[in-house]
Amino acid sequence: MLAQTVRSEDVRDAAERIAGRVRRTPVLELGELQGASVVAKLELLQHTGSFKPRGAFNKLLSSEVPPAGVIAASGGNFGLAVAYAARETGVPAEVFIPSTSPTTKVERVQAHGAHVTIVEGYWAEAQEAMEVRAAETGALVMHPFDQPEVIAGGGTLGLEIEEQVPDVDSVLMAVGGGGPLAGIAAWCGDRVRVIGVEPEGCASMTSALAAGEPVVVPVGGLGSDSLGAARVGDHVFPIVRDRVDRMVLVTEDQIRDAQRTLWDDVRLIVEPGGAAAFAALRSGAFDVSAGERVCVVLSGGNCDPSTVTTPT
Amino acid sequence: MLAQTVRSEDVRDAAERIAGRVRRTPVLELGELQGASVVAKLELLQHTGSFKPRGAFNKLLSSEVPPAGVIAASGGNFGLAVAYAARETGVPAEVFIPSTSPTTKVERVQAHGAHVTIVEGYWAEAQEAMEVRAAETGALVMHPFDQPEVIAGGGTLGLEIEEQVPDVDSVLMAVGGGGPLAGIAAWCGDRVRVIGVEPEGCASMTSALAAGEPVVVPVGGLGSDSLGAARVGDHVFPIVRDRVDRMVLVTEDQIRDAQRTLWDDVRLIVEPGGAAAFAALRSGAFDVSAGERVCVVLSGGNCDPSTVTTPT
Repeated sequence: MLAQTVRSEDVRDAAERIAGRVRRTPVLELGELQGASVVAKLELLQHTGSFKPRGAFNKLLSSEVPPAGVIAASGGNFGLAVAYAARETGVPAEVFIPSTSPTTKVERVQAHGAHVTIVEGYWAEAQEAMEVRAAETGALVMHPFDQPEVIAGGGTLGLEIEEQVPDVDSVLMAVGGGGPLAGIAAWCGDRVRVIGVEPEGCASMTSALAAGEPVVVPVGGLGSDSLGAARVGDHVFPIVRDRVDRMVLVTEDQIRDAQRTLWDDVRLIVEPGGAAAFAALRSGAFDVSAGERVCVVLSGGNCDPSTVTTPT
Repeated sequence: MLAQTVRSEDVRDAAERIAGRVRRTPVLELGELQGASVVAKLELLQHTGSFKPRGAFNKLLSSEVPPAGVIAASGGNFGLAVAYAARETGVPAEVFIPSTSPTTKVERVQAHGAHVTIVEGYWAEAQEAMEVRAAETGALVMHPFDQPEVIAGGGTLGLEIEEQVPDVDSVLMAVGGGGPLAGIAAWCGDRVRVIGVEPEGCASMTSALAAGEPVVVPVGGLGSDSLGAARVGDHVFPIVRDRVDRMVLVTEDQIRDAQRTLWDDVRLIVEPGGAAAFAALRSGAFDVSAGERVCVVLSGGNCDPSTVTTPT
């Protein structure tokens, strides 16, 4: 087991490093919910539609990038962020995408100028093929959540939230591999209650905490396109174990209801994983104290709006 | 012709009156566009999905509301805002909706608890039937744009923009009947360049300025659902004439392109009228100076997302 590899000063450094490269996404007061005073961090308005550029830029800008550029395996938000960050900093990017990813994602990664290779299978197969290729080319490997620079980049969400909501008591963040949750906790877990939220079908962090170490779990269902990491990160785990208040699980119905409410009442299209934190609050799965000041991160907006606006 | 009936102190009073009733919508830095430094006021995240509650609440809260409550004619954003504001303040509301409005709008107004009457025809017919009914019941008539309290309420957008973007040089706002444009200009037209934007097919303000007074013009096409007032207001006109820098026209293609860009790059669903101001900037129809600090108001988000995300 690794010791804690990301500290608050790493998050501070990351914030300085990526300033001007990422959007300082705004917060929106949502009023009272379950007796708490709720504010949303609108991270779905980030470049490429999710928080992922924070970690991608921090990794890229704190590394010596070889001539072969950067390389990653992802059929989703991280692939988009790597392609975007590489183009913005003028380095080549290769992204390995599992054949199970939707074509629209492939096209968007290509539109950002990355070279795409489709790999038969799921993320694990794409990751394996990517590693073979990286060994050949010497490209800088970008991991979606388990590199200290990526975690610290995600942690800049916590830094901004503390600046934008100085009286915040609790922050709710969705968890896939756990990168930004760990980063936020590394930044302010000693001052603010940091809570992770997982769909029931993607409970890799809840399972890891129960087991005392990262374990491989089956994942699937609504939200798994962005939160479906089968195993949380080795760098991530000790930070979450030591500095996160607790984990909360939400059902698919609670996520759908949260998405629908965010559209009906706030006119935001939020992807299932991006709505998980709000679902925990709205459903009561996360039990707030009266008068508590809660910030929910709306962490991604990359989905077909018709899946949100059409009742199922 | 009326003299200027809304002054900056009226906007200040309106802001105090409606505080806590409307959302202080956030701003988002969009970076550089056409050489200008651009920030968007995300007013589409307002309650009911448009700026309209600002004026509705200000009219309602500054009036003595009779037992019959409030009454309005609107098949769109103003009807929603009146229904919402009435429910929030505990007064009855009647909304007259032209039969040409989409059923979804009718359902949303009803969902906010208003009594709905469908009137055969367009807005003018609904307005006429509403006036007959108002004379019978004594209900407080709410006008979508041509009442001083409604104009002052819309002007609070300008007040917030100056607080949120202290170095703003220019504000771009879409124009239907011209209420919020006049309100913003009443607030800060002496300090900030206030620019109105109309779709070519809804040029009631451009035509009024050319004629030297409000005139009836034919309206239609993309954006007319929210910006299709055939004649600008009598209270609105002198304020715009005296304090607005200029009007800009945009084409339907420029509006569609703006909507598409706001979805692709910012993950926002913006209705055609709500995207008109951004269209003026993005297309170059509004010619900015290098280094200028521009705020575009994204003023509404009430449309079917599939009309934005599916290329036409």
